[in-house]
Amino acid sequence: MRGGPRAGDAFGEMLLAELEIMQAGGGRSVTEIVERDDGFIRAASAARYFARPAEWAPFERRALDLAAGRVIDVGCGAGRFALALQERGIAVTALDISPGAVEVSRRRGVRDVVRASAQEGAVGGGAYDTLLLMGENLGLIGGRGRAAAFLAGLAAAATPTARIIGHGADPHQTRDPVHVRYRERNHGADAMDGQMTIRVRYRDLATAWFPYLLCSPSELAGLVAGTEWELTDVEHVDQVNYLAVLTRGP
Amino acid sequence: MRGGPRAGDAFGEMLLAELEIMQAGGGRSVTEIVERDDGFIRAASAARYFARPAEWAPFERRALDLAAGRVIDVGCGAGRFALALQERGIAVTALDISPGAVEVSRRRGVRDVVRASAQEGAVGGGAYDTLLLMGENLGLIGGRGRAAAFLAGLAAAATPTARIIGHGADPHQTRDPVHVRYRERNHGADAMDGQMTIRVRYRDLATAWFPYLLCSPSELAGLVAGTEWELTDVEHVDQVNYLAVLTRGP
Repeated sequence: MRGGPRAGDAFGEMLLAELEIMQAGGGRSVTEIVERDDGFIRAASAARYFARPAEWAPFERRALDLAAGRVIDVGCGAGRFALALQERGIAVTALDISPGAVEVSRRRGVRDVVRASAQEGAVGGGAYDTLLLMGENLGLIGGRGRAAAFLAGLAAAATPTARIIGHGADPHQTRDPVHVRYRERNHGADAMDGQMTIRVRYRDLATAWFPYLLCSPSELAGLVAGTEWELTDVEHVDQVNYLAVLTRGP
Repeated sequence: MRGGPRAGDAFGEMLLAELEIMQAGGGRSVTEIVERDDGFIRAASAARYFARPAEWAPFERRALDLAAGRVIDVGCGAGRFALALQERGIAVTALDISPGAVEVSRRRGVRDVVRASAQEGAVGGGAYDTLLLMGENLGLIGGRGRAAAFLAGLAAAATPTARIIGHGADPHQTRDPVHVRYRERNHGADAMDGQMTIRVRYRDLATAWFPYLLCSPSELAGLVAGTEWELTDVEHVDQVNYLAVLTRGP
């Protein structure tokens, strides 16, 4: 090895490349490559970050309907939720830690975009009524050791009666031996079943490794217990995916 | 890191997965992921390994027309060239080092498939009139230090008047900074411009790292000098790709 990928904004550069292809007329698509720390690697089209509501899954459109008041789109990617909310006349701030994602969201017309992580919750000074964690961004909770701080960060951005609308995925359904092996090693490390460490790669760039969590609704309720949030509604989309509503408690 | 990918037949497992999707009716496609030792990574659809001649580039169909006598398809992948030759009534042996590629070629109907590397040239006992190195398999020459042994292996499989029909790619046209950086490091290591070390990844599997060479026709002529082969014809397809004919010398 000559040292492996360079540290950089692989996610944002991927979105920028996809935007440029689309603006040049499309016809092909950039591939998002996500690598897990056991070497498992998967590819998916970056085009989904740019999809219009008509192309979304129905539960994603229902998440839009649930957004009320001032909204913050946490981990906005290419800004698909922020753009859809703007079109409805809803005030929305788009947030992403990736400079490239921020740039792409701006270029696509999102008016209020901030480069920050979800933990930097001071954004907006506690003014948000709805916090969107769509696109499986509930996974940013990361794991048992990080959940409290992450949820406190979100609370700092939220009004006293705010709600989190998030897309989660349950890791317990898979019988895929690769994922079962990963889960078993998690058990050995006293981690949750769906806890993992991943990074995004694009060309010769890789993001830093970051923690990501797949969890069931009941695990989510457990993580939320003792925080300022309460799991108040779960809509099961299929065996794996669900839409969760967390309400800020008294 | 938990140790990175497992060593295995990533290329063959990818082809097997793609075959199974196609046999189930298609609709999506597996992605081939190739990683270079500087961390550069790229993704491409595995569907191209299964393309029928009507979907090929015209120069690939011309390569078919050039195949005469007994043919060996070196690095057969999913067997697309071997199948096309069989349909023309031409005797062909398909060769691949990947057990999965051998299995996929067999399942698709290639009658004579051998699991071996190109260097194990004893295959066929010197009976092949045409040696196909299509799908950029001229790159298997690997580099200056490997070319003589590789070409001797091919000669051992060949009749005294055999020809190699190969697809090559010229690395000198690119101005992509990622590739220019790689080339500059090659200079420092006294390697050829287009010499590289790559591996294929699929799910949690990775092949061994292997040497691969992009070279211009004149560099190819230089590598062939002093061997039993001579570069007798080059058809330039575009700025990068070419079809080369090597003829076994006296």
